[in-house]
Amino acid sequence: MSAIPSHKSSSSSSSSSSSSSSSSTIKSSLIEPDGGALVDRVVPESERAAKALKAESLPKVGLTQIDLEWVHVISEGWASPLKGFMREDEYLQSLHFNCIRMKDGTIVNMSLPIVLAIDDEAKERIGASQDVGLVGPTGDLVGILRSIEIYKHNKEERVARTWGTTAPGLPYVEEVITPAGNWLLGGDLEVLKPIKYNDGLDHYRLSPQQLREEFDKRQADAVFAFQLRNPVHNGHALLMNDTRRRLLEMGYKNPILLLHPLGGYTKADDVPLDVRMEQHSKVLEDGVLDPETTIVAIFPSPMHYAGPTEVQWHAKGRINAGANFYIVGRDPAGMGHPTEKRDLYDPDHGKKVLSMAPGLEKLNILPFRVAAYDTVGKKMAFFDPSRAKDFLFISGTKVATAF
Amino acid sequence: MSAIPSHKSSSSSSSSSSSSSSSSTIKSSLIEPDGGALVDRVVPESERAAKALKAESLPKVGLTQIDLEWVHVISEGWASPLKGFMREDEYLQSLHFNCIRMKDGTIVNMSLPIVLAIDDEAKERIGASQDVGLVGPTGDLVGILRSIEIYKHNKEERVARTWGTTAPGLPYVEEVITPAGNWLLGGDLEVLKPIKYNDGLDHYRLSPQQLREEFDKRQADAVFAFQLRNPVHNGHALLMNDTRRRLLEMGYKNPILLLHPLGGYTKADDVPLDVRMEQHSKVLEDGVLDPETTIVAIFPSPMHYAGPTEVQWHAKGRINAGANFYIVGRDPAGMGHPTEKRDLYDPDHGKKVLSMAPGLEKLNILPFRVAAYDTVGKKMAFFDPSRAKDFLFISGTKVATAF
Repeated sequence: MSAIPSHKSSSSSSSSSSSSSSSSTIKSSLIEPDGGALVDRVVPESERAAKALKAESLPKVGLTQIDLEWVHVISEGWASPLKGFMREDEYLQSLHFNCIRMKDGTIVNMSLPIVLAIDDEAKERIGASQDVGLVGPTGDLVGILRSIEIYKHNKEERVARTWGTTAPGLPYVEEVITPAGNWLLGGDLEVLKPIKYNDGLDHYRLSPQQLREEFDKRQADAVFAFQLRNPVHNGHALLMNDTRRRLLEMGYKNPILLLHPLGGYTKADDVPLDVRMEQHSKVLEDGVLDPETTIVAIFPSPMHYAGPTEVQWHAKGRINAGANFYIVGRDPAGMGHPTEKRDLYDPDHGKKVLSMAPGLEKLNILPFRVAAYDTVGKKMAFFDPSRAKDFLFISGTKVATAF
Repeated sequence: MSAIPSHKSSSSSSSSSSSSSSSSTIKSSLIEPDGGALVDRVVPESERAAKALKAESLPKVGLTQIDLEWVHVISEGWASPLKGFMREDEYLQSLHFNCIRMKDGTIVNMSLPIVLAIDDEAKERIGASQDVGLVGPTGDLVGILRSIEIYKHNKEERVARTWGTTAPGLPYVEEVITPAGNWLLGGDLEVLKPIKYNDGLDHYRLSPQQLREEFDKRQADAVFAFQLRNPVHNGHALLMNDTRRRLLEMGYKNPILLLHPLGGYTKADDVPLDVRMEQHSKVLEDGVLDPETTIVAIFPSPMHYAGPTEVQWHAKGRINAGANFYIVGRDPAGMGHPTEKRDLYDPDHGKKVLSMAPGLEKLNILPFRVAAYDTVGKKMAFFDPSRAKDFLFISGTKVATAF
């Protein structure tokens, strides 16, 4: 299965507005990206050689694989209007308000700090330089950070305000933040070429711009996004099909589903990306979801497991990709408390916080209706609390091998 | 010294608009309270007996002294537009966004959760009742909470998101939150009569409404507030007088200083309120500050020592009292880290966060210029970094006995 089947919409006017391959002039009815214009920080091909040459003389900062995932995220505009790693003003607003005020007074949502940590040695190496070169984990020059600012990496405060706990055992904290340096490096990013992973899944890694082009090509008048970090099960499929039905009932003519598994860092016991993509692909092949009205693509962000704070980022990223409806489940981006026998977050808080988040007013939040196996009807159905004992719950993780 | 000296402004038009004792009809040029109207949750005298009688039949919830301070704060409208203890929607917005969206879409700042904790027993006692009676620490019926909502008190998350740390030893956490119940009780407050402390300082406890009346009476065209929880020293005085001078230079005709020590809960090693008030009074008597253009009053809020999060509350409360300028110092509402040898907060973050806080755009933030004793000029002067060694720094606490 290809991520974008060479598809001809059944709608009669499909060829009118979508012929150009450069999308910037396509008239689109899709939701506006945050800040009004999609950020694109990939250097045009014609300028790459010259920029790379110049960058060679800059002080260098090494990126971890997860840093590189954030470079990918920023460069394609998922975090629009963010143009690079956060400077301190942006970082503080993100930490305290989960949103950032732009110069014109507009508020955009920005719930996770998108930051680049460096150590004392790197700070010293940078000295008074205004720009730095970014070197990927394999040693190649990936990009440049311009008009930089170095500020303190207050790890304890960052963790407390992002996760609402500082308990040991938070995966992203242990694997990314704790080993990181005590400084943060902000600045405007320029990426020398599109980030690729060469893992056989790059064709699924559509940029927000590519997704918007595809939605336009299919003449989508509504796009509903579904974030996943686990295999799809029939309950999800029921929900997604039901959402489409509801959108049609609301008067939309061509709602398109963006089935959008998270492709960046996940914790060790989550199902690996390649297995999940294989499984998602099967679900479409089996006709459980309609390929005509579904796009499967990878959301390149790393996972924080930061519940109500993180779900805002998941939603915001999809606005930038053109989604105006977002399906939110129980305990989104949640996990068990790392040291106590309970969920880290109240399972309802994600949905509540998302629905009240500054900067996300334009997004339609669709609360997840819980689906389970109805042992009487002998099929997946929406949970009916009046006959709770007829229903069998299966988790996405448990069902991984069922397809 | 009385908090409001019977004062006649030297301005020639002082008698025109300020003769009425009921202020609601006075035309005022003061900054609007948050939400447009000052909240007043004190039951009118004529209705008190009947309300008290009805309240007798309600389930009761006991208040601690600090709960009572919050009742005081809410009832007088310091937290306008908040009408009572926060319900969950308000609490979550406060925790995640430091601001709350009102029904008309307006954003108001609300950085500290203003909540009432109850234990399992109280929750059971309340049962399905819509309203509860609030009983003060001395056993008297203080007020009523209407249309209540009970929700989980996620203490760890509350602390992490409010303080940016969960380290043991935070005074408000140890003394107030840790011993509190596992539920929060939200609802609209009605206070049966104004909260009094009978400690000889009640005449300093002017409500936002009373302060606004006083500012109007004095024909203030600018009000600049200075939050204190320590004795005033000459450096403060220099700063306050200099601020007035700057406001006059900006074209204001009659800037009034609100010298506004915090009067609620403070940690054990802070200077007690009565000592501070005595000292503030002396400073005015000595003419260090001009009584004609200064109002000394008590801000009834308890202290959280929550740095950048709390300073927003300190500023917001003063907007509701009519201040349109707010002086912010180094490390406002900060303290030492409870378990590490460093400040809990970056000393610049309070000022930065305050200046970017949603809902505080209408407030003019005046960064504190650092004053110290100039050993060459032999007087308090603004610190000149080019001859740093000439200056002697004294803290508010150290200077406590110097007056």
